[in-house]
Amino acid sequence: METYDVIVIGAGPAGLSAAIYTARAGLKTLILEREFPGGRLAKAPKIENYPGVMKTSGPELVATMKQQAERFGAEIRSGEDVVQLELAGDEKIVRTHSGNAFKALAVIVAIGTNKKKLVVPGEEKFLGSGVSYCAICDAPFYRDKVVVIVGNGQEAGEEAIILSEFAKEVIIIPNGELEMEHALLEDLKNKSNVSILEDTRVREIKGDSMVSSILVEDLNGDNGREIPVGGVFISLGGVPMSNVIKNAGINVDNGGCIIVDRNQRTNIEGVFAAGECTCGGMQAITSAGEGAMAGIKASSYVKKKKRGK
Amino acid sequence: METYDVIVIGAGPAGLSAAIYTARAGLKTLILEREFPGGRLAKAPKIENYPGVMKTSGPELVATMKQQAERFGAEIRSGEDVVQLELAGDEKIVRTHSGNAFKALAVIVAIGTNKKKLVVPGEEKFLGSGVSYCAICDAPFYRDKVVVIVGNGQEAGEEAIILSEFAKEVIIIPNGELEMEHALLEDLKNKSNVSILEDTRVREIKGDSMVSSILVEDLNGDNGREIPVGGVFISLGGVPMSNVIKNAGINVDNGGCIIVDRNQRTNIEGVFAAGECTCGGMQAITSAGEGAMAGIKASSYVKKKKRGK
Repeated sequence: METYDVIVIGAGPAGLSAAIYTARAGLKTLILEREFPGGRLAKAPKIENYPGVMKTSGPELVATMKQQAERFGAEIRSGEDVVQLELAGDEKIVRTHSGNAFKALAVIVAIGTNKKKLVVPGEEKFLGSGVSYCAICDAPFYRDKVVVIVGNGQEAGEEAIILSEFAKEVIIIPNGELEMEHALLEDLKNKSNVSILEDTRVREIKGDSMVSSILVEDLNGDNGREIPVGGVFISLGGVPMSNVIKNAGINVDNGGCIIVDRNQRTNIEGVFAAGECTCGGMQAITSAGEGAMAGIKASSYVKKKKRGK
Repeated sequence: METYDVIVIGAGPAGLSAAIYTARAGLKTLILEREFPGGRLAKAPKIENYPGVMKTSGPELVATMKQQAERFGAEIRSGEDVVQLELAGDEKIVRTHSGNAFKALAVIVAIGTNKKKLVVPGEEKFLGSGVSYCAICDAPFYRDKVVVIVGNGQEAGEEAIILSEFAKEVIIIPNGELEMEHALLEDLKNKSNVSILEDTRVREIKGDSMVSSILVEDLNGDNGREIPVGGVFISLGGVPMSNVIKNAGINVDNGGCIIVDRNQRTNIEGVFAAGECTCGGMQAITSAGEGAMAGIKASSYVKKKKRGK
């Protein structure tokens, strides 16, 4: 079994930042990534609010972070989906679907979250090209456009308010029964550029290189019709945390978020978590900050463990 | 009294990142800075571990963050030292030493820390005459001299590197256990004019009109001895600047750090804190992450307040 000082699970901004810190601290660091480095960030076409970088793209930011982590000696293995964690002892064991197993003194979980999908044609194709799962991140890109937000909950309503300050027109499609607070609904009704389209379901997202329209279906039996839109925001909440985490005994809250303290420690000694899997903000910069903190704290932990030997 | 949506106190990486987020959310944002933008970061000569930026310097990183905040509409006022905060009501009032007062619905505290004193005879007497708390500011004055730098942390090591480019000889006295990163220690070992004097404490700083020597004590029991030096740099890290904060009713812990939850909220509604004043990591990236989170949460808070009116 290959042995490391630190294993980081997930190569998004949180995981890469954690590895920059552990590798630079001289610790033998492995990053396991089930797909390819970058996570959700790799899909962001344009970023203007990452403090310290005037203008960039997700892939560019990810490439720099990856280069930094590797420069300090971190090893990245893509296509390694973690299926089992044995965390009880001093030596943590991480097993992947390919049958590989790795050992380390500390584990940093940075696996992100999966936003709930709408599951319609075009959703995946136009991600980052008119389809977004985060209004606060992307609203400014939709200035003077017509946008749709799909979602029935409080968060969808709040995101609609944000969108209404940038977009020309905001159409809320609850895709189910409205579950927003009265005050929020009143606010939405008072916005001249916000409307709610009830009893309607999105069937398809259409366009060429960018989203240009959606096909909707009237639940009362009318035929489908096409609405021209420049953007589709999907706000259906998050998918519960992966079973691997729960099975390993890591505490999560009701929403499936990994519970951490301000030092990014979980309930298990030597196990840290950072980024979206802790529900600690959905921005590259908040994930990078948490990742760095997890890396710093994991480094001290490992160095103390080694001195104690 | 000038009215804003959000007032950010402090223009270091935490404050600037917070302002990038509040201003970009369309909120009227004021940053009050007692000195000049950048905080401690403005003094870092070389940065290679800020995730997403391959190689930069503190001043460069600060300049970019400042440009981003201003581009989204934030206003920065330098030379405004905050002396009083009235935070109880919905409208928070911030007063500065110049007699100015500003009003806002939310306040983000990002004031960083003050320099820690060594507390030995001669330290105060020779301040500016051989005693300094800022290597990057004063190193050029010590060309071809022997200097001591007192400190065990990362910052002390970085300052030693700066000093080694000017001084004839640099002696590091950790005054405690060394807590520098592996990569930095390697760099220091490669400098022919840098040495580290462990198990030693500074007892006194001596001289006439200028510093001429220090008295040190060997922790292993030897008698004190005198080392001729031309300068003493003190780099012991920060202590939170807590008087204004405490007087305003913001809860701090025993170390003087502002207590925040994972959403950067303090005990007072509408008051957030981020960066080194929360003792949430002493790195630009952790401060920026916390600042962004504070900015996101303050934006939602202010928008809710405005809707409630």
